[in-house]
Amino acid sequence: MILAFIGTAGSGKTTLTGEFGKYLSENGYRVAYVNLDTGVRKLPYTPDLDVREKVTAWSLMDEGLGPNGAIVKSYDILAEYTGEYAEKIRELDKESDYVLIDTPGQMETFLFHEFGVELMEAFPDALGVYLFSPEVLRKPSDFCFAVFFGLMIDLRLGITTVPALNKVDTVEDIEGIRKYLDDIEYLTARLKLEPSTQGLLAYKLCSSLPELAPPTRVLYLSAKTGEGFEDLETVAYEHYCTCGDLT
Amino acid sequence: MILAFIGTAGSGKTTLTGEFGKYLSENGYRVAYVNLDTGVRKLPYTPDLDVREKVTAWSLMDEGLGPNGAIVKSYDILAEYTGEYAEKIRELDKESDYVLIDTPGQMETFLFHEFGVELMEAFPDALGVYLFSPEVLRKPSDFCFAVFFGLMIDLRLGITTVPALNKVDTVEDIEGIRKYLDDIEYLTARLKLEPSTQGLLAYKLCSSLPELAPPTRVLYLSAKTGEGFEDLETVAYEHYCTCGDLT
Repeated sequence: MILAFIGTAGSGKTTLTGEFGKYLSENGYRVAYVNLDTGVRKLPYTPDLDVREKVTAWSLMDEGLGPNGAIVKSYDILAEYTGEYAEKIRELDKESDYVLIDTPGQMETFLFHEFGVELMEAFPDALGVYLFSPEVLRKPSDFCFAVFFGLMIDLRLGITTVPALNKVDTVEDIEGIRKYLDDIEYLTARLKLEPSTQGLLAYKLCSSLPELAPPTRVLYLSAKTGEGFEDLETVAYEHYCTCGDLT
Repeated sequence: MILAFIGTAGSGKTTLTGEFGKYLSENGYRVAYVNLDTGVRKLPYTPDLDVREKVTAWSLMDEGLGPNGAIVKSYDILAEYTGEYAEKIRELDKESDYVLIDTPGQMETFLFHEFGVELMEAFPDALGVYLFSPEVLRKPSDFCFAVFFGLMIDLRLGITTVPALNKVDTVEDIEGIRKYLDDIEYLTARLKLEPSTQGLLAYKLCSSLPELAPPTRVLYLSAKTGEGFEDLETVAYEHYCTCGDLT
C-alpha cells in the first residue's frame, strides 16, 4: 500500500517518513521509501527511489536561479519523467508491504505542479496523510482550515487524505486541541459564537463538512515518541481493506 | 486601500504587482509597494517597504541552510517584527491610494506561517487577490479546487479574497475556461457527470459554494497586456465602498 506524506516545509514529513518506516520494519513489514524532494540535503532513511538522481534544487541555484525559481524549475524537469516514476513506484508497491512517499518540501510544489498531480493520478488508491503543525492552530477558525485543507488535497490529488496533527509531543494542552478536532459538531457550535466574517465563513464551512465528506478521524502523531503510529497503521490498513471509511 | 497578491511561486505575483502599480500610477493614484518575499533577487518596482532589509533567504543559505529551511527560517525571524511591519503598512495606507502587497514566493509561507497570518489580521479590510495559473486547470475538478482555494485563503487570513486567473495572454481557449469559472452552476452540472470519487467530492463542494460564500466574480488578468486591470480596479473599489459584495 502507498502512503504519501504531504505538508508544508517544516511540518515534519521527512522525519516522520523515516520513523514510521522504521516502526513498520520492526513490525515485520517490507518498507520502500520514495523521496520526491529536490531540495533536501540529508535523509534519515535510505530511499529506494530518489528524484535527486535526476535533478536537485542546489544544482539549479548554482546555475543562478533563486531558491523558489530553482525549486519550481526542478519539478518542471521532473514532469518529463512522471510516467517513469509512476512505473517505479508501482514496482516498489509490488515488492513491498508499504511504500512511503516523502513529498516535496513545499506542499504547493506538489499540489499545484503537474508533476505531483499527474504522479498521484496514477495511484488513486494511495492514502494521503496531511501533516500540519500545532502552531497552525491559533484560533477556532484555524481548526476548520486544517480539516478543510485535508479535503482540498483530496480534491486536488484524487486520493483519500487523512489530516494528522504532527509533533504532538510539543503540545502542552492536547485535550484543548482534541475537543475541536475530534468533534466537528462542537467546533461548529464554537464557531457560531465568532462575531467576525472569518468566523462566519468558518462556521458555514464546518457546518457543511458532514455533507461533503465521510467523517474522518484526525490522527495525532509524533516522530519523536512514536505516538499515533499504531493509529496510522490501522487507518492505512482500513483504507486498503474497506476502501475509504476512515471513521 | 490594501491589496495583497497571493499565489504559488511562479503564479506571477511580482510582475503583476509591478504592472498593476504602474497602471494605477498612470491613472493618477498614489501607489505604495510592499515586498514580503525574502527570496526574491530583483523586483520590477521600487518597494516602499521591503522585508529583505531585515533578512534574506540568501544570507541564511550562505550559513548552510537548504532552500526550504532558509525560507522558513527567514519568516521565523520576520515574525518578531510583525507589529512593526503592520504599523509601517498602516502608514503607507494613510499616505497612498493603493498599497500593493507582494507576498512571499511560496504561498504556503504566507498562509501557514504566523508572520503572514498575524500581519493580515491587522488588516481585515484588505482585499486578497488569489492568483492562479492556467496550467492548474486540467480537468473539471481543478476549477472547483481553484475557486475553493480562494475561500481557503479567506478563511485563513480573514480577508475577502477574489480568485484571479493570471497570465490569460497565454491561454488559447479562454472561453472554454470562462464557461466553468463564470458559471458555477454549469461547472456543478458538469461535475455531476464525473464518475470518480474525486469528481463526487468536487461536485459536493461546488454544490455547496452558493451557501458558503456570496457569489464571487473571477478576474482574468495579464501583466503582459494589462487585460483585466480595470476589472481589478473596479473590484477593489467596490470592496472598499460596499464592503464585500464582489458579484
